[in-house]
Amino acid sequence: MEEPKKIIIDTDPGIDDAMAIFLALQSPEVEVIGLTTIYGNVYTTLATRNALHLLEVAGRTDIPVAEGSHVTITKGTKLRIADFVHGTDGLGNQNFPPPKGKAIEQSAAAFLVQQANLYPGKVTVVALGPLTNIALAIQLDPAFTENIGQIVILGGAFAVNGNVNPAAEANIFGDPDAADIVFTSGADILAVGINVTHQVVLTDADRDKLAQSDGKFAQYLCRILDVYFSYHHDAYSTRGVYLHDPTALIAAVNPSLITYTEGAVRVQTIGITRGLTLFYNKQKRFGEVTDWGDKPSVKVAVTVDAPSVVKLLMDRLMAS
Amino acid sequence: MEEPKKIIIDTDPGIDDAMAIFLALQSPEVEVIGLTTIYGNVYTTLATRNALHLLEVAGRTDIPVAEGSHVTITKGTKLRIADFVHGTDGLGNQNFPPPKGKAIEQSAAAFLVQQANLYPGKVTVVALGPLTNIALAIQLDPAFTENIGQIVILGGAFAVNGNVNPAAEANIFGDPDAADIVFTSGADILAVGINVTHQVVLTDADRDKLAQSDGKFAQYLCRILDVYFSYHHDAYSTRGVYLHDPTALIAAVNPSLITYTEGAVRVQTIGITRGLTLFYNKQKRFGEVTDWGDKPSVKVAVTVDAPSVVKLLMDRLMAS
Repeated sequence: MEEPKKIIIDTDPGIDDAMAIFLALQSPEVEVIGLTTIYGNVYTTLATRNALHLLEVAGRTDIPVAEGSHVTITKGTKLRIADFVHGTDGLGNQNFPPPKGKAIEQSAAAFLVQQANLYPGKVTVVALGPLTNIALAIQLDPAFTENIGQIVILGGAFAVNGNVNPAAEANIFGDPDAADIVFTSGADILAVGINVTHQVVLTDADRDKLAQSDGKFAQYLCRILDVYFSYHHDAYSTRGVYLHDPTALIAAVNPSLITYTEGAVRVQTIGITRGLTLFYNKQKRFGEVTDWGDKPSVKVAVTVDAPSVVKLLMDRLMAS
Repeated sequence: MEEPKKIIIDTDPGIDDAMAIFLALQSPEVEVIGLTTIYGNVYTTLATRNALHLLEVAGRTDIPVAEGSHVTITKGTKLRIADFVHGTDGLGNQNFPPPKGKAIEQSAAAFLVQQANLYPGKVTVVALGPLTNIALAIQLDPAFTENIGQIVILGGAFAVNGNVNPAAEANIFGDPDAADIVFTSGADILAVGINVTHQVVLTDADRDKLAQSDGKFAQYLCRILDVYFSYHHDAYSTRGVYLHDPTALIAAVNPSLITYTEGAVRVQTIGITRGLTLFYNKQKRFGEVTDWGDKPSVKVAVTVDAPSVVKLLMDRLMAS
């Protein structure tokens, strides 16, 4: 049997983060060697609290949590916190008790660098929030981009409208400067944008099925899903929710469920399209020098086997 | 029989501009009531010279030419002239003699305003270059957006890479500030971007067929097409050329050959994606105010019946 893939989940829990974390813990193909936290769905302090809480729910307090940045990489930028999507506590306004555990002393960026050095080429980072921690790791250690195995990014809106505004997806909008550093770093990157995750929907019927399961993860998630369903109904007129974070996690675990294209990605950091991800397919030869020309290629997901992703997620969340 | 549609072609000739102008003159569905000139493929002075020259070739010196702006609407911006696509004379480096005629005294913007007032709701502007003249007409007369019938814009790269750089299409990149004014003006706008015109290709075989025709327009165009074919071969590795301007002209003449969607378009005017056209489909309800939210919808072409466009163009250019 193949050795499980070592993954670090960089996360801002977040209802769909909780799903992705539980899914990872239930997946024999991966070994979660740490969680790192970041602002996004909630502020970083709360993200850390929620990460510790979720590991306690799962009975996996052996997994270290490293707290990440409280500010964007350029600092001074006002944070955009999506508490209206996930509840003010990030977990469906359920007033869970505070966790007993604590984050490790290391920062998220230092932890990422350390683990990449410890297992060169073997660690996959699944980044489910703004990319500040990953950019800081790159700045901390120039060898990080070579030592890290792959960075799977839940982020971007490739050739579709964003979800923060028509131009930008939330995670990239959260720290566009960091995202541009990461996309152009030369690391092995797979970006899973909302053009893909909007194809993967958990329906009301799926939720009912989860509710009837005895699995502790299914039970827990059904408690917190209300706010997330309400938001989707209001914003998108859908009776169902997008499975952003679980889809990115599955892309890391089982890449055969997606297809991707390759090219250079730059992030617009100013103006009305701040946070836009612009993919260059490297087809046309431009006469003039462009801001994409000398940038390394990354992988950008194009299609997803949505029914299989939903089934895999459901099966694993319902298993005890 | 229906009255022919009055059109003004705003143009920077340009090899494919020449095709579009000849096509219009050969089309009984339209009456060309004027040409206005703009920089783009060449500087404005040369655009005016070429417009007069093309009308003389066609024997249509009855049609007025109004010279347009020599600078972008914000001024001070360095012009980008695509002489490497069309030849330094804009017409395939054929050293045509100077035209005998002269432009009228009116500026392009004043002419546009005057004609829109003269025939309210009846004039279609087909804009084949940067949108400076159209934006100036809007600034000159706030009623222009209501008096003008439709503005058909050859411009933008909607959800595809640009042709100046990965983000921007040449006409929008030529004056992004003007383009943003036009797209958000409230006028009846149909944008035909390179996502559509790249589907419409004149092949080597088509060109051979043109060369065998006795039609004076076909004969003339075959003299000037070399440079345009060479550019496409070098930049795109294609043996054939994109029919940008003729496709936009046909979209104005026969809208049944395209389909379109509707939404708000903004143009990014700064940064690495300067000149990007960002279409908002008005599907998601955003919690926050966005730069697209209160903007009027425009039409953006999505598909084109390419074989019919090529056939219509060929047939009319080969007719005597």
